[in-house]
Amino acid sequence: MKNTVVCLLLAASVLPLGGTAQSITRLNPTNWWVGMKNTNVQVLVYGPSAGTLAYTINYPGVKLVKANTVENPNYAFLDLAIASTAKPGTVKIVGKKGAQTITQNWELKARDNAPKGQGVTSADFIYLAMPDRFANGDPSNDKFADLADPNADRSNPFYRHGGDLQGAAQHIGYLKDLGVTAVWFTPVLENNQPLTNEGGNMRSAYHGYGFTDHYVIDKRLGGNEAYKAYVQQAHTAGLKVVQDAVYNHIGINHWFVKDAPMKSWLHQWPTYTNTSYRQQPITDPYASQIDKKVTLDGWFVPFLPDLNQSNPYVANFLIQHAIWTVETFGVDAWRIDTYMYNDQPFMNRCNAALLKEYPKIHIFGESSVNNVVDQAYYVKNNINFPFKSNQPGGLDFTLEGAMMAGLKEVGTPAATGWDNGVQRVYQMLAQDAVYQEPGKLVTFLDNHDHNRFLSEVGEDFDKYKIGLTWLLTTRGIPSMYYGTEILMKNFKDPSDAEVRRDFPGGWPDDKENKFTSGGRSAKENEAFNYVRTLASYRRTHPVLHSGKLMQYLPENGLYAYFRYNASGTVLVATNSTDKPASLPTARFSERMSGFTKARNVLTNETLNDLKTLQLPAKTAVVLELMK
Amino acid sequence: MKNTVVCLLLAASVLPLGGTAQSITRLNPTNWWVGMKNTNVQVLVYGPSAGTLAYTINYPGVKLVKANTVENPNYAFLDLAIASTAKPGTVKIVGKKGAQTITQNWELKARDNAPKGQGVTSADFIYLAMPDRFANGDPSNDKFADLADPNADRSNPFYRHGGDLQGAAQHIGYLKDLGVTAVWFTPVLENNQPLTNEGGNMRSAYHGYGFTDHYVIDKRLGGNEAYKAYVQQAHTAGLKVVQDAVYNHIGINHWFVKDAPMKSWLHQWPTYTNTSYRQQPITDPYASQIDKKVTLDGWFVPFLPDLNQSNPYVANFLIQHAIWTVETFGVDAWRIDTYMYNDQPFMNRCNAALLKEYPKIHIFGESSVNNVVDQAYYVKNNINFPFKSNQPGGLDFTLEGAMMAGLKEVGTPAATGWDNGVQRVYQMLAQDAVYQEPGKLVTFLDNHDHNRFLSEVGEDFDKYKIGLTWLLTTRGIPSMYYGTEILMKNFKDPSDAEVRRDFPGGWPDDKENKFTSGGRSAKENEAFNYVRTLASYRRTHPVLHSGKLMQYLPENGLYAYFRYNASGTVLVATNSTDKPASLPTARFSERMSGFTKARNVLTNETLNDLKTLQLPAKTAVVLELMK
Repeated sequence: MKNTVVCLLLAASVLPLGGTAQSITRLNPTNWWVGMKNTNVQVLVYGPSAGTLAYTINYPGVKLVKANTVENPNYAFLDLAIASTAKPGTVKIVGKKGAQTITQNWELKARDNAPKGQGVTSADFIYLAMPDRFANGDPSNDKFADLADPNADRSNPFYRHGGDLQGAAQHIGYLKDLGVTAVWFTPVLENNQPLTNEGGNMRSAYHGYGFTDHYVIDKRLGGNEAYKAYVQQAHTAGLKVVQDAVYNHIGINHWFVKDAPMKSWLHQWPTYTNTSYRQQPITDPYASQIDKKVTLDGWFVPFLPDLNQSNPYVANFLIQHAIWTVETFGVDAWRIDTYMYNDQPFMNRCNAALLKEYPKIHIFGESSVNNVVDQAYYVKNNINFPFKSNQPGGLDFTLEGAMMAGLKEVGTPAATGWDNGVQRVYQMLAQDAVYQEPGKLVTFLDNHDHNRFLSEVGEDFDKYKIGLTWLLTTRGIPSMYYGTEILMKNFKDPSDAEVRRDFPGGWPDDKENKFTSGGRSAKENEAFNYVRTLASYRRTHPVLHSGKLMQYLPENGLYAYFRYNASGTVLVATNSTDKPASLPTARFSERMSGFTKARNVLTNETLNDLKTLQLPAKTAVVLELMK
Repeated sequence: MKNTVVCLLLAASVLPLGGTAQSITRLNPTNWWVGMKNTNVQVLVYGPSAGTLAYTINYPGVKLVKANTVENPNYAFLDLAIASTAKPGTVKIVGKKGAQTITQNWELKARDNAPKGQGVTSADFIYLAMPDRFANGDPSNDKFADLADPNADRSNPFYRHGGDLQGAAQHIGYLKDLGVTAVWFTPVLENNQPLTNEGGNMRSAYHGYGFTDHYVIDKRLGGNEAYKAYVQQAHTAGLKVVQDAVYNHIGINHWFVKDAPMKSWLHQWPTYTNTSYRQQPITDPYASQIDKKVTLDGWFVPFLPDLNQSNPYVANFLIQHAIWTVETFGVDAWRIDTYMYNDQPFMNRCNAALLKEYPKIHIFGESSVNNVVDQAYYVKNNINFPFKSNQPGGLDFTLEGAMMAGLKEVGTPAATGWDNGVQRVYQMLAQDAVYQEPGKLVTFLDNHDHNRFLSEVGEDFDKYKIGLTWLLTTRGIPSMYYGTEILMKNFKDPSDAEVRRDFPGGWPDDKENKFTSGGRSAKENEAFNYVRTLASYRRTHPVLHSGKLMQYLPENGLYAYFRYNASGTVLVATNSTDKPASLPTARFSERMSGFTKARNVLTNETLNDLKTLQLPAKTAVVLELMK
């Protein structure tokens, strides 16, 4: 299959113009707005021989600066300048060739006042869900015969399961009750990808990372209108929405892959070349050119062609789509897939463009690396790398790694090891000097690509609670993968689908409904309430958002840290050993001086003596200190 | 013992002046020079009631700027300014009290032209030896009845064994033959420390890290004259000498500990407080003051009092001693013990003072940390830490850790693991962007505080050879611990003394003499010759010193890197698996283009086809590429 793909692309890019009559079948972006800070926009015009037309625009305040033609005659790229005086209305894009005139309408809209680009901050708690696996609100859109994968079958982990945005909207109240303040869906754009079987490996696109049309929300999720409606309802309820963006690649079935504007639209290789999935060649001062190129320009997988973002047309296309998306749907933050595989100068331009229009928007990319030096490279950092990233945030993979490794050692002899257990978490945070704004990193315990948290910690409920306590009280913007609160578990072996199971109760025919307390077991309710208690406390206590962090060197497997500001101090103390422990607090006087008692946030008990804390085995306590 | 020590110090510092007649028993520095770049020197004057005298100096070009008195009346600190016009001669320091006049002579010497402060660079290969355990050239100085530890007994690992500088001098030829270019001895200063037994833990000072008089070389090593002679002979032979310096602490028997100038001369604690040995509180942006203080000001062990370098008298004392040492003995580089436990602003001042007088001197500290962020903190780095170190070099603990962990996996299934085996070395070097000058780090496979290299790699001769190949061909200044070349082995359990055994042949009564090829076994000669071949090649090929490094992403347990400059290219290729492997070189064209054959540096064989390299199992090859 690998060679086939590449040959198809090469063939498409040199397709000679046939005898077809000229027409325009697509304009991207599909519309624009007056009053944007960036007054330039480049409209991709596509259709048979669309690149052979002579274009004119006659609309007050809109100037056609240049009509660009490229290798493939089916494309034109029109550079427009939109004056601040331009009024909303229908711009007629006129293409002429000989006696033929083609006119396409293109809307120039007024910007609305709906909230958009609000950002997520450390005041938020993000819930990551896969729309296909969360809740099915509209069984009529589960499958479509005209799509490359026309199947829907919940008994097959690789097929679509029918979840959609309407279903998600029906459970906004559930998330609000849980204490969530922002929702992040795996991508919602059209993924009209085939279901394939590569030597026993099923390749499906229910996860959403193979776009086939940037300007269409997948109709199985409800289409553009359902997404607009979802964001509106979420905003009304006080939930923000994070969009999952993919710049690095598109689906093999993307319309422009089938008839690429030019050979350099995609990264081309003489024979199929996969990325090495290796971070080092990018930051290594000793790296070879070929290793860099393989990391960056190698394809993520054979069915996800790699976009060439150093091509200015590609860059414009992607940047404009990002802005169009925020303006159209009103999303608040931007999670970026496979961030480290993108052309980094392009990423900086893209981030800057989004931040120019939406100064409060948050951007956090996925760079799955194993050390803080490499993690810092992809965000605003304090290291004088030859390249300086402007990304405000990023997913904190190294802290996840430290927390998982540390939690596995909780309650074992390693809990008190020199560099083990809670030391791992302490030591990882102690390296935060590399980041300009570590509080803007998005923290997590698992995600749709990792083993589920509960399984990763051996289904040990004590470790589960400690992990969630750290997540919701230490620095950063916490995010949680759907179902963690109801003890969903599994390993990604034998397939990722194992960690992407349906949320029970999201489908009309589900026997159990874990969206309700009555549908949850006692243990599941204990878990749900644990998250809710912490998340609710966090939501209402800014000290856990913007308060400073002070952490103390762990001793004997006991780890204490504080969040503090002028109005309050919270102490989080973890006993990672398998025995109850006493923790004298004299050492913490820099933070505890003046406080005489405390409220246990998780139990609501009052402690009237803070001299020595009694910590049960394998437990994290959260204490609000009081005078 | 712990509390006793502290009380003793406190008592000493407030000792009331008795009826003793005034006298001056010590002047430190013991002399100075004309023509130093820094024209100021502070002379510590010590003796009964020395601080109660009124001082005058009448010497052309020497001005007594200020005579400082401190808490303890037995001290005065005289600030002198030495004009560039001052001539060498005997300065009379005159102290008066009432009718009494005390005069002490203090030499102001001319500077000699002998080599000093030559530095070590990546052109060097450093040999670390413990003088007491290397060779005994003068059995008459093995022990002295007037010392706190009057014993010498080679059958006891904790007693002195009698090795000395004269013995080391007798083996300069051995080191030259091996390809060594610089010698680093564990400290040679007087360690008049007692041998104690702390609950079964023997505490001895044969290692040299507990100074009792800064201006005296231990007489068991031959005293000041033997050290001068050693450096002179080494220089004549073309060997440089590295001094092992200790600023953080001194021995419990140091003369000024017994009658400290002031309470703040040492770090004082209400009850004995050990350092936590933890790096994190220094670099952690979230650290507490108490954790920082314990790391920095806590004592290294109870019998090594911790100097307070923020006390300006202490700082002057240490800085002047450093300069005095280089000027007196002619040493070339400066290894600094327990670097991370020192007051870092003081370290910067001290480094700057040494570099001002000796611009080529190299300074490399011991900061035993477990990640590159913390390692970078203690050298000139590319991270915007609140504190900026000016140290040019440092011992590369993180690379040692990566090499040991990686070598242990050589030949095992882990050799091809995602982040294992040679990946560890590759990934560690790939983080070098944090350092301003990674080539100035001093690399090593073990030292006197670690398990011996051969034991650490399971006495596997293949791993031993791979490790030495990396050490002598990758970036940095390589150093090797004595005896590695003759397969000395051992673990530091049950005691450090196990990794500090006598070099066989260094004592007149030794049955074996491994300084000679005839005294070595076949395997030992193979090891010796392996080191010699690589070290000799390295010495004569600047491409391995100043040549750039390019490393390729390891694939299938095969790791290739290049050293290259305008005049040559060397390829080092490691097969870390337990099977012979073929390594196609097309991927390395950026470095190999134009080369058609190669010489195997280790076997002297010529390879006439470079398209695919045949690599034996568990082997590193060094190939000099040829056109």
